[in-house]
Amino acid sequence: LTTPAQKKISYSKRGMALEDDINETNQYYLVNGMAVIHKKPTPIQIVEVDYKKRSTAVIKEAYFRQASTTDYNGICEGKYIDFEAKETQSTTSFPLMNFHEHQISHMQNIVQHKGIAFVILRFAKTDEVFLLECEVLFNFWERMNNGGRKSITKKEIHDFGHKINIGYHPRLDYLKILKEIYSF
Amino acid sequence: LTTPAQKKISYSKRGMALEDDINETNQYYLVNGMAVIHKKPTPIQIVEVDYKKRSTAVIKEAYFRQASTTDYNGICEGKYIDFEAKETQSTTSFPLMNFHEHQISHMQNIVQHKGIAFVILRFAKTDEVFLLECEVLFNFWERMNNGGRKSITKKEIHDFGHKINIGYHPRLDYLKILKEIYSF
Ligand SMILES: [Mg+2]
Ligand SMILES: [Mg+2]
Repeated sequence: LTTPAQKKISYSKRGMALEDDINETNQYYLVNGMAVIHKKPTPIQIVEVDYKKRSTAVIKEAYFRQASTTDYNGICEGKYIDFEAKETQSTTSFPLMNFHEHQISHMQNIVQHKGIAFVILRFAKTDEVFLLECEVLFNFWERMNNGGRKSITKKEIHDFGHKINIGYHPRLDYLKILKEIYSF
Repeated sequence: LTTPAQKKISYSKRGMALEDDINETNQYYLVNGMAVIHKKPTPIQIVEVDYKKRSTAVIKEAYFRQASTTDYNGICEGKYIDFEAKETQSTTSFPLMNFHEHQISHMQNIVQHKGIAFVILRFAKTDEVFLLECEVLFNFWERMNNGGRKSITKKEIHDFGHKINIGYHPRLDYLKILKEIYSF
């Protein structure tokens, strides 16, 4: 049963569920010495700061900036790890407009430097989460740039991605999948 | 010759010189395919956002939060790179209060996962910049925790650190030093 209050909370937190699950998972990895992976702070352009209150500086005017990289990065057993997490309300496909050109080129740079780059995709309505290697994403990105469809179908994500089962603790054990893919 | 206007600019940007030099250096590395290292955004606690103007959300109230990790991280030739940059106005020693306990333990975690962690220290008054491996920092941190001095003397930094010569482009070629230390 869901009370109206709970409903309101879930509504206001819509789009944050994936991030919360990943943060919990990263915390689990950190505490257990399995990996050191953190979310990067949201980039902000600060315009005005009030230093009047001596104890605390208050930011009075600021704007959200577009991130130049991905959401998360870190290290696991000597491997550099880098990924972006995205959710969609669509049930049939994942729109590529969720990604930015500079995020794609950032992931390309990471691969060139022998790092591990990928995306974690969540279908919010069905709460299904997939890990997609960046090389697979690059192919669909190229297809779009060549005039093809502007999304990845759910079937394609099933076929070329890896389903992440939702657990209790950690909630999204993506490291397990990475270790299988990259055998480390 | 320095005009009053220039003086004012340098004054207002005091403390930013090191960050600027490192950002320029990272940009040089990125463009030349040498490394992918970025500064993490400053962590902000957002309290109030004005969505009234449909085009742009305006942050009306926010606060600076303490960073839980370090300033910079990234990858170079498969190696995970992680560092903190700090400046001091002191001419004789580098105060350890510039670092936080959680930054030290973050660097310890990185080392455990076979990453490369270090600090870049700048003596602002003489514009001298040094790279100090985190293992060296840990020793001085321990000395402080055992009741010893709360700073690293300049002589110790000279003896145990690596001077980074200030160049034109890139301005602070710390990668060159890392490659010597870790032979990669
Ligand atoms: Mg995201
Ligand atoms: Mg710093």
